[in-house]
Amino acid sequence: MSAINLDHISTNQLLPEVQDAMIEAIKNSYANPSSQNSKGDEAAGVIEKSRESVARLINCKNTKQIAFTSSGTESINHAIKGVAFANSDKGKHIVTTNIEHAAANRSIKRLTQMGYKATSVEVDNKGRVNPDDIAKAITSETILVSVMHSNNEIGTIQPIEEIAKITKEKKVIFHSDAVDSVGIVPIDVLQLGVDLLSFASNPYYGPTGVGGLYIRRGISIWPIIDGGVQERNKRAGTENIIGIIGMGVAADLAKKNMDKRVAHLNNLKNLLISEFPNYVDEYCINGDPENGLPNLVSVAIKYIEGESIILMLDDEGYAVSTRSACAAGSLRASHVLMSIGLDHADAQGTLVITPGVENTKEEIIGFLKALKNVVKTLRDISPLYKK
Amino acid sequence: MSAINLDHISTNQLLPEVQDAMIEAIKNSYANPSSQNSKGDEAAGVIEKSRESVARLINCKNTKQIAFTSSGTESINHAIKGVAFANSDKGKHIVTTNIEHAAANRSIKRLTQMGYKATSVEVDNKGRVNPDDIAKAITSETILVSVMHSNNEIGTIQPIEEIAKITKEKKVIFHSDAVDSVGIVPIDVLQLGVDLLSFASNPYYGPTGVGGLYIRRGISIWPIIDGGVQERNKRAGTENIIGIIGMGVAADLAKKNMDKRVAHLNNLKNLLISEFPNYVDEYCINGDPENGLPNLVSVAIKYIEGESIILMLDDEGYAVSTRSACAAGSLRASHVLMSIGLDHADAQGTLVITPGVENTKEEIIGFLKALKNVVKTLRDISPLYKK
Repeated sequence: MSAINLDHISTNQLLPEVQDAMIEAIKNSYANPSSQNSKGDEAAGVIEKSRESVARLINCKNTKQIAFTSSGTESINHAIKGVAFANSDKGKHIVTTNIEHAAANRSIKRLTQMGYKATSVEVDNKGRVNPDDIAKAITSETILVSVMHSNNEIGTIQPIEEIAKITKEKKVIFHSDAVDSVGIVPIDVLQLGVDLLSFASNPYYGPTGVGGLYIRRGISIWPIIDGGVQERNKRAGTENIIGIIGMGVAADLAKKNMDKRVAHLNNLKNLLISEFPNYVDEYCINGDPENGLPNLVSVAIKYIEGESIILMLDDEGYAVSTRSACAAGSLRASHVLMSIGLDHADAQGTLVITPGVENTKEEIIGFLKALKNVVKTLRDISPLYKK
Repeated sequence: MSAINLDHISTNQLLPEVQDAMIEAIKNSYANPSSQNSKGDEAAGVIEKSRESVARLINCKNTKQIAFTSSGTESINHAIKGVAFANSDKGKHIVTTNIEHAAANRSIKRLTQMGYKATSVEVDNKGRVNPDDIAKAITSETILVSVMHSNNEIGTIQPIEEIAKITKEKKVIFHSDAVDSVGIVPIDVLQLGVDLLSFASNPYYGPTGVGGLYIRRGISIWPIIDGGVQERNKRAGTENIIGIIGMGVAADLAKKNMDKRVAHLNNLKNLLISEFPNYVDEYCINGDPENGLPNLVSVAIKYIEGESIILMLDDEGYAVSTRSACAAGSLRASHVLMSIGLDHADAQGTLVITPGVENTKEEIIGFLKALKNVVKTLRDISPLYKK
């Protein structure tokens, strides 16, 4: 049973302040915000307060541009399918990269089943897309460019600002999946220049089951969930008010503690990378640690399988992962790692280590010690490994 | 500030047992169910336990046929759009009624913007659709029939079993929006014979922000939220585990206490209807109380406006509504009431009174006394009312 969580890309403990606010919300048993009475007005006010917190976190100056959703995945589906459906009269071509999250990949794949076309631009061996390649992929039929802000398996941060300049010039709508960036690193939608930005609550220690979509005013987009007049007709359905309250508190804390958290996470990451060779040999760090998320280290360990490592580490009390939790059920090698040029063996031998704000330097060293033993045990039985 | 809730169609207090389970879940801070470690397995197990509870509530024998969603509205969108998209090669025609919830109405309207056609079958003056009319509306192009189980404004319950016989014979997929029925009245998907059934958690005193969709095995349907492998590839996105836990507990209680609750609600409803003429004159009961939901009375009060009544009742401490909370922002007269033949004035003068399990007979009488005063005050200033 894992006691020490180094798999924050999958799971975050709810912060005590978030827990308290959610418990209070449960006890308060808020009304349906759409109820036609004073209790409904009270609930609607609580949601708007959370919306302000979330808007501040991404420097969105107008809360009307934020719609709450049920997850980062829903936000990404909403952005991609919503733009595609609303703009099909202008064209049916989408530009993206080959390392997007399954929510984007599969949304686009779904659209190709409906007559849309997609161009998937290749990234370099650090996982970075060249904005010029995006520019070249855009045609007169292109209605949407969708590029993730940071990659959830290797941590590489994309040149979103530069891409936004291109899409603005070419008058193409630009969406960025920032699910693993918002609340972790400073995000400013005005500076980035994006039209749509997807995010969730759980990456920054808020609850699962709640996310958000920034929709710049004037962007032509359809809801994917139609019905009542909630979220200014952008997203129907009675609101997850308890989750939204938790997300608001988590957003306030993320904003307030951003600098301190980033510094702490960078310290842990740097320690992990610098100490790694003292515990394990024959490995390589994937992605672009110098231009990557502060909370993610992806490392390919030669001759052994990641799945075996995480099971043994779990027994030792450490949780890490091999890839996106959303793709954990798949047996295929990670498309992200293959896209940055890893061979099949290295992709299968990759660990994704994602420390969180509550981790300590001692835990990182403890993890490395445990990893050393696990690697030795597994290499001793590996037919690929020659001592 | 409303202290007594007679607007359960909009808002339900979370039951104490549901609150306790959700608070426990928050303190436990479950892992992401897709995490590749023992904490993830634990969380996945908790979700499956809730799925069993929900399945039992609707007599679904195979939990694989239940997908959790973020609301009844999402479930309805999923059913209607998911079937339409997956079966467009077979035809693009949908049959429905003219009193469906906005989630169904607007999903179908959205599809008509994408080249689909819809036939909206009229209901009678009690709000009941004639199965023969559904049969007549089905063509060789029809891929889906969508009829709500019970109406959320007038409470009328539709002849779902009879319609299911028709759709089965004609080999058309049949979806029923049972959001306001599941957990309120006994629902048995096998007996009903539906292919898809939408429901939510909040109507039976569970949390908002969580719902479900029964998808009979073999039904051709696409997800509307694509991405990770959650919910057996039926619905992507990290799960709202706290909400799902609350929904499971609420489902267990609804199943266990069904008979007792229905009897209590019918007592309150019968009291309300039988005592009404002793407090207010010149009114009519809408819908079909004898074949309707036990928790809903819709009444058109002559010469005055429903909106004014609910504001004054709110001040007196009673919450009721004039229509679906999801349509509360709209200024137009209810499409449901117009569809059953009310004139504009009677539609605008309609109150929807929806008692819940915690209400008492004394509260019903207290409400009628308050209503009597409100009606008198408003009629005294109404230009339409002649004493």
